[in-house]
Amino acid sequence: MLAEILEQPAALARTLKAQIPAAKKLQRALAAKRPSLIVLAARGTSDNAAQFARYLLEIETGIPVSLAAPSINTLYGAQVNLSNALVVAISQSGESTDTNFVLERAKEQGAMTVGITNEADSTLAKLADHVLLVRAGKERSVAATKTYTGQLLSVYLLAYALGSRFSLENLERIPDLAAAALTLEPEITTLAARYSFMNHAVVVGRGLNYSNAFELALKLMETCYVVAERFSSADLLHGPIAMVEAAFPVFLFAPPGPTWPSLSTMLEKLDSLSADVFVITDPRNKEAASVRRRLVIPIKPPVSKGLEDLFTPIPYIIPGQMLAAKLAAEKGLNPDAPRALSKVTRTL
Amino acid sequence: MLAEILEQPAALARTLKAQIPAAKKLQRALAAKRPSLIVLAARGTSDNAAQFARYLLEIETGIPVSLAAPSINTLYGAQVNLSNALVVAISQSGESTDTNFVLERAKEQGAMTVGITNEADSTLAKLADHVLLVRAGKERSVAATKTYTGQLLSVYLLAYALGSRFSLENLERIPDLAAAALTLEPEITTLAARYSFMNHAVVVGRGLNYSNAFELALKLMETCYVVAERFSSADLLHGPIAMVEAAFPVFLFAPPGPTWPSLSTMLEKLDSLSADVFVITDPRNKEAASVRRRLVIPIKPPVSKGLEDLFTPIPYIIPGQMLAAKLAAEKGLNPDAPRALSKVTRTL
Repeated sequence: MLAEILEQPAALARTLKAQIPAAKKLQRALAAKRPSLIVLAARGTSDNAAQFARYLLEIETGIPVSLAAPSINTLYGAQVNLSNALVVAISQSGESTDTNFVLERAKEQGAMTVGITNEADSTLAKLADHVLLVRAGKERSVAATKTYTGQLLSVYLLAYALGSRFSLENLERIPDLAAAALTLEPEITTLAARYSFMNHAVVVGRGLNYSNAFELALKLMETCYVVAERFSSADLLHGPIAMVEAAFPVFLFAPPGPTWPSLSTMLEKLDSLSADVFVITDPRNKEAASVRRRLVIPIKPPVSKGLEDLFTPIPYIIPGQMLAAKLAAEKGLNPDAPRALSKVTRTL
Repeated sequence: MLAEILEQPAALARTLKAQIPAAKKLQRALAAKRPSLIVLAARGTSDNAAQFARYLLEIETGIPVSLAAPSINTLYGAQVNLSNALVVAISQSGESTDTNFVLERAKEQGAMTVGITNEADSTLAKLADHVLLVRAGKERSVAATKTYTGQLLSVYLLAYALGSRFSLENLERIPDLAAAALTLEPEITTLAARYSFMNHAVVVGRGLNYSNAFELALKLMETCYVVAERFSSADLLHGPIAMVEAAFPVFLFAPPGPTWPSLSTMLEKLDSLSADVFVITDPRNKEAASVRRRLVIPIKPPVSKGLEDLFTPIPYIIPGQMLAAKLAAEKGLNPDAPRALSKVTRTL
């Protein structure tokens, strides 16, 4: 798992370079037939990438986005009208039966379809009108890491194809941002020891980093068997904050930009509850960088005004991935083969 | 909290009777301007009702549904194109600032808007083109119960207005189904004792009962401080099942119908992990009724073929509400005033 985490800058650079022609072709196709709705279908880690896509695509394109509930098709047999939709399935293996089913049905209705997958020969790659192929190389660990960041990068390319405010040149900085995050490895090794006996945790993110809260929680659950709740700062205040107490560590993604005022209010509330809080941030957020326990990723991503967090999701999840891998080691667990899990999950 | 749980059959009957004219008026308005998309905006318990609406409305109407992420409007200032959408805000107080903001913006764009709220004089009720008013009476407990089931009932009425396969007469059975669920109270008192020292739990539901998994988990978190994870049976298999073990109780909503084969597979997997499993079911699901630990709600709701679970969400959540209230009492906690919570949450 750790080896695959370290491969990410190279995997991201490879994926970006190889995907540019596909993104430009997709851009032309979408210019000819602009969708009125985007539907995303995914499961597991890929569903977290879809959660990111939901924010990025609505923010950048103004087209409404829906996360598909595949069971509406597969179990209830309902026919949802997707004729003017762009339907995007995200699956590392490309063999997730229910998301492929959603794509197939949408195609029959005349929807344009995109597959984001790691496998060029998969069912998904064959089924979709357009494929954004994640060139992460074979992922051996059951816990997905480099395929997740590769999926996020593919989502940026999809936003570009639909007409984003950022350029392809902006995306070229992403592998460097990932590399900068990896420099925190020694700090994270020390940090992991502190959480050796952590049994449960809350992970909080908002907006573009909401998906990272889900993804870090998923890594902690599947590799460290930590019961990890994930919330947006808004939803945590609506009930679940009742259970937060001193013995219940909170991890918070705290980029500068639009989500910071809300996260800052949350931090004050957590302080008043004497909660044990850890923030992941970067030097541009001076207030978060003064929180007692923090990881400050040495990055300065290119920004649009009022969108300081636009390129934070990829570098911000990497310390979380390293924390999960190192904490598993501290706990004497094998993060590459969690109990009761297999790499490809087929859903009825 | 318990008193309000017991009021539900009367509150549901009152709400249904009073809402029929509003539902018929809404039906006429929607016949004149059928939306191509439904967007739902909500937070907390109301967001769980929205999760139910997402399934019910897609299954019954075939119109795609999106759960709004309010921060895309409120924090990122993005303009999502909702001109052909029906935008529905759900809020018991009607004063949730960010969901009201989503509704206001949508209205400016020409979208038709519906408010589902408990308060006739609220900002939401004044803002929305159409109001479905939940007549649950004043809810004093911070933990929402009768307003949640009232919201679910309102969602059935919305589906009816959009053209459902069920009739208004079918809905008239719902208060009786709720009353039948309440007859399990003595059994639940005994049951609550067994979980006195439960610190964490997993709640599983799928399809129309997926929202109930979120809602039961939220009640356990806010009133009993139990760390309660909630999953669909499909997502649990994608990673988090790694953390389930004997000491980690699982609660499962197991109605008969489309979701049962998937839940049954999940139950087998949980059995092989020696997990402590509890199912909530009814006599029509003979396989689930033979699980060792179960609550069998004495109901026979009217069914459409292949949709045996259509009217289960309201009666199925009621034993969960009672369990949360009684478990809080077992633990010596006051479920009406959970620490760190207030009734109306204003989100930045």
